[in-house]
Amino acid sequence: MIKDRFLRALRCQPVDCTPIWMMRQAGRFLPEYRATRARAGDFLTLCKTPELACEVTLQPVQRFPLDAAIIFSDILTIPDAMGLGLTLNEGEGPRFQHPVRHEKDVQRLFVPDPESELRYVTDAIRLVKTALQGRIPLIGFSGSPWTLATYMVEGRGSRDFRIIKTMLYDRPELLQQMLSIVSEAVITYLKAQAAAGVQAMMVFDTWGGVLSHQAFLDFSLQYMHRIVTAVKATYPEIPLILFTKGGGQWLPALADTGCDALGLDWTCSLAKARQLTANKVALQGNLDPAALYASAETIRKQVAAVLADFGPGPGHVFNLGHGVNPDTDPERVAVLIDAVHEQSRQSK
Amino acid sequence: MIKDRFLRALRCQPVDCTPIWMMRQAGRFLPEYRATRARAGDFLTLCKTPELACEVTLQPVQRFPLDAAIIFSDILTIPDAMGLGLTLNEGEGPRFQHPVRHEKDVQRLFVPDPESELRYVTDAIRLVKTALQGRIPLIGFSGSPWTLATYMVEGRGSRDFRIIKTMLYDRPELLQQMLSIVSEAVITYLKAQAAAGVQAMMVFDTWGGVLSHQAFLDFSLQYMHRIVTAVKATYPEIPLILFTKGGGQWLPALADTGCDALGLDWTCSLAKARQLTANKVALQGNLDPAALYASAETIRKQVAAVLADFGPGPGHVFNLGHGVNPDTDPERVAVLIDAVHEQSRQSK
Repeated sequence: MIKDRFLRALRCQPVDCTPIWMMRQAGRFLPEYRATRARAGDFLTLCKTPELACEVTLQPVQRFPLDAAIIFSDILTIPDAMGLGLTLNEGEGPRFQHPVRHEKDVQRLFVPDPESELRYVTDAIRLVKTALQGRIPLIGFSGSPWTLATYMVEGRGSRDFRIIKTMLYDRPELLQQMLSIVSEAVITYLKAQAAAGVQAMMVFDTWGGVLSHQAFLDFSLQYMHRIVTAVKATYPEIPLILFTKGGGQWLPALADTGCDALGLDWTCSLAKARQLTANKVALQGNLDPAALYASAETIRKQVAAVLADFGPGPGHVFNLGHGVNPDTDPERVAVLIDAVHEQSRQSK
Repeated sequence: MIKDRFLRALRCQPVDCTPIWMMRQAGRFLPEYRATRARAGDFLTLCKTPELACEVTLQPVQRFPLDAAIIFSDILTIPDAMGLGLTLNEGEGPRFQHPVRHEKDVQRLFVPDPESELRYVTDAIRLVKTALQGRIPLIGFSGSPWTLATYMVEGRGSRDFRIIKTMLYDRPELLQQMLSIVSEAVITYLKAQAAAGVQAMMVFDTWGGVLSHQAFLDFSLQYMHRIVTAVKATYPEIPLILFTKGGGQWLPALADTGCDALGLDWTCSLAKARQLTANKVALQGNLDPAALYASAETIRKQVAAVLADFGPGPGHVFNLGHGVNPDTDPERVAVLIDAVHEQSRQSK
């Protein structure tokens, strides 16, 4: 029997109180993170040095009674390992030197070997596992194929996604060829993370919400479905969470992929999401990260509202609806975590 | 009996073919607009000079067989008329010199008299009406109270809405006091536009989609509901369209306000939206504006997909799911409009 609160909730099993972790919990809102980051020099060095990645992974779970750790890394490690020339400079966001736009670019793509090109990630996982000694579970993750493709094609972050959407509308088969290769890479990468010891996995579909409903099904969901099927075939016991930001309209389709849980942003009602997904999956979320700018008293009220929205019964992992904002006061995060544990314990 | 295609569609009456207009059709993608804009000197002068506003309103409907004109203006005319000191400089977006953040700022707010402070808008409407001579209907509009409040509180465009969300969570009664005044201003403004001759009205809730589901109901929908009730009480015969970008999860609640039509962004399925709103309202939308970057052939296919998604029966106004992008080729817009008319005529 699994005793862990977070893993039990992901399996919709009863828990003593609602588990909580936060997207981007290992990150800029923590002064100790900023110190390690300064020591590393730049962000990519921090990602690629297992000892440093391990250190920042552990920081939030040392400071707060969080119910899970998530390996510190970046979703762009896969395209970087594909040789697209990633740079991540302060203030300008990610850039790829060799964006993927033409047939010849797609033909050059390959599935990186996680135990060589991405060894730094699995090494960091092994270090964190040793340090945690089973105290709380460790989550592994990847970007979704569509989300990775947006950066690979645009060559950087985008607001209108002009280049990839032109490809989607005019050259759908080329984009699908690319998404197939990226999906294979994600599958291989997540399996390597599982082999290295992660106890849950999450796929971040950060940009699925910019697609039309039909394009979402054809260019994002289809590939996430493929990933769930392949990863669960090898690791059926490891819970897999899908999170499409802005995907509240597509929850039933997301739940039908065979994943174990869905991440929800704060625009969704948890109560409605439970109905829509017919208790097929656990739900993770979904406090507005901006609520952490409010007073302690307000935060406690907002926690109560989220817990009440989910309602009684198992299958809830508390989280923010998106990553914690870099200018969040760590003291407010402490209030949040205590409120989730206390209030949910009372109602169990 | 109303003969006009656009007004009939908004009333869910049969039409010869599906009417189309485009959000931001009077705008930067047109070279003739850019010429008038250059002549005006700056954007606010363009808005505030009725002859120039009339000229750019007419430009798209002179060039294309569009089924409606929309008065050229900006959603920030109301807070500007409230004396908040609006500037709209190229490249930096709107700024307010006097943002509304404290009790004293809210107490200073007032409902502007549309026939004095906003006379330039109703004057432009009268000029356009004379020029159109009833050829096609003219749409009036306003920003939603929540959307206007985001600019009034933040003092500029925002990505995280930190200041207004902190107010929302910590001082909800202060924000609601502000939203009540802004709602009164919107009601007065829309009634003045109706009196000046607009034949349909639209409320743009551009930023409703950044709210949590409960906050959307309390801080955006509630005030749009109030506007619909008040404006329809005086002008029951003028169709009113509500558009919350990113509001696909809230369509049933939006339809229950008593509005005549809902605008949909491209993430919504029109078929699903019809089910969810039980044919209570007409639907307006919802081609991805990025589809206009594609080839003429692709655009025709995407038009077919949108028309098929809506399916047979009345109550559809074709539009983009958001404003037309400034770098759109006007030739592609011509393809779009012809495709909508031709394809829908065949299927009637």
